[in-house]
Amino acid sequence: MNKSVSEAVIKRLPKYYKHLKELEISGLTKVSSGKLAEMLNITASQVRQDFCNFGGFGQQGYGYDVGRLRTEIANILGLNRTYNMIIIGAGNIGRALASYKGFVNEGFSIMALFDVVTNDKRVTDNIPLYPMEELENYVNNNQVDIAIIATQRESAQEVANRLSELGVTNYWNFAPVELKLDNKCIVENVYLSESLNVLSYRMNNN
Amino acid sequence: MNKSVSEAVIKRLPKYYKHLKELEISGLTKVSSGKLAEMLNITASQVRQDFCNFGGFGQQGYGYDVGRLRTEIANILGLNRTYNMIIIGAGNIGRALASYKGFVNEGFSIMALFDVVTNDKRVTDNIPLYPMEELENYVNNNQVDIAIIATQRESAQEVANRLSELGVTNYWNFAPVELKLDNKCIVENVYLSESLNVLSYRMNNN
Repeated sequence: MNKSVSEAVIKRLPKYYKHLKELEISGLTKVSSGKLAEMLNITASQVRQDFCNFGGFGQQGYGYDVGRLRTEIANILGLNRTYNMIIIGAGNIGRALASYKGFVNEGFSIMALFDVVTNDKRVTDNIPLYPMEELENYVNNNQVDIAIIATQRESAQEVANRLSELGVTNYWNFAPVELKLDNKCIVENVYLSESLNVLSYRMNNN
Repeated sequence: MNKSVSEAVIKRLPKYYKHLKELEISGLTKVSSGKLAEMLNITASQVRQDFCNFGGFGQQGYGYDVGRLRTEIANILGLNRTYNMIIIGAGNIGRALASYKGFVNEGFSIMALFDVVTNDKRVTDNIPLYPMEELENYVNNNQVDIAIIATQRESAQEVANRLSELGVTNYWNFAPVELKLDNKCIVENVYLSESLNVLSYRMNNN
């Protein structure tokens, strides 16, 4: 389904969802495409066009029903289910993600951390830290929906290969490499250095 | 300068830079637009078009000089200078960024952390942690090129307002809010939840 949805629209969906949650918390029950457009810094016609990809969500004269629209977009984003995640790499980023509470409410749970070094005692509210040798055993015996790659750049591809052979198809990658994996694999990257370099570009070219 | 450079090109510049560093490390001295295109998963003509925004970088018959191209793109990205950064919010993300060594080599240094709570002893290789009351005093007496916002969502805007009044114009924002600041301010966002939601979208719509 939704094969033709553009990258730009996909990237806006979480923004709609975030703003609709805020509106719902603030007690608003109806919202216009104009108001949503303003929140996302796009045009009202772009909002309606975006929503047309998903059947339009039945805007009425007074606008969209906030709760219903939030639910529909949550469903499209796959937030109507839960995800078991493991983190490979218990360095600074891996540990920060393990301790971060913000994802759990949306159904994303960190089940385990893996690292070559497991004697670091700084870990992490009840999330077990396993040695890398346990990876195969763990993945074979537990549901792993998403693997978070938080290793050093040098190890990332090898770790992803191991996971892919075990049947893990979904990757949230924080290592500064482009993972080369099967076409059936889905990789979403967070490249912190690139983001920082875009900032420094703007600082020097504005 | 470079006023007309598109967002897409700006976002590709750090990717070119990253790949050129790798090529340089691997000992390659010349690279074709076709090879760069392959590395970025775009077309060779797109590469040449991107580079035209910056004068073309003088491709010769055998391609670009790797070292020279890396240096030129580094300069465009503002990586020929250093940046003093402070982090507001010493939670999981703030501490992870403070401990992360990956930025320092490119000239980005974390000078200080600020938080409302300063009695947490988990801190961070030689980076001082100050109470929020010290923010004004610190910024008035030290060069702050970039403020990293790693607070709770509820505090992010207020903290950014304080910094903006102190004359800080550049923000790397990890809080899940869109900061509303002066037009002269530059904000680059890292929205982890949005990235994770794009991943879950693809998992459910591929």
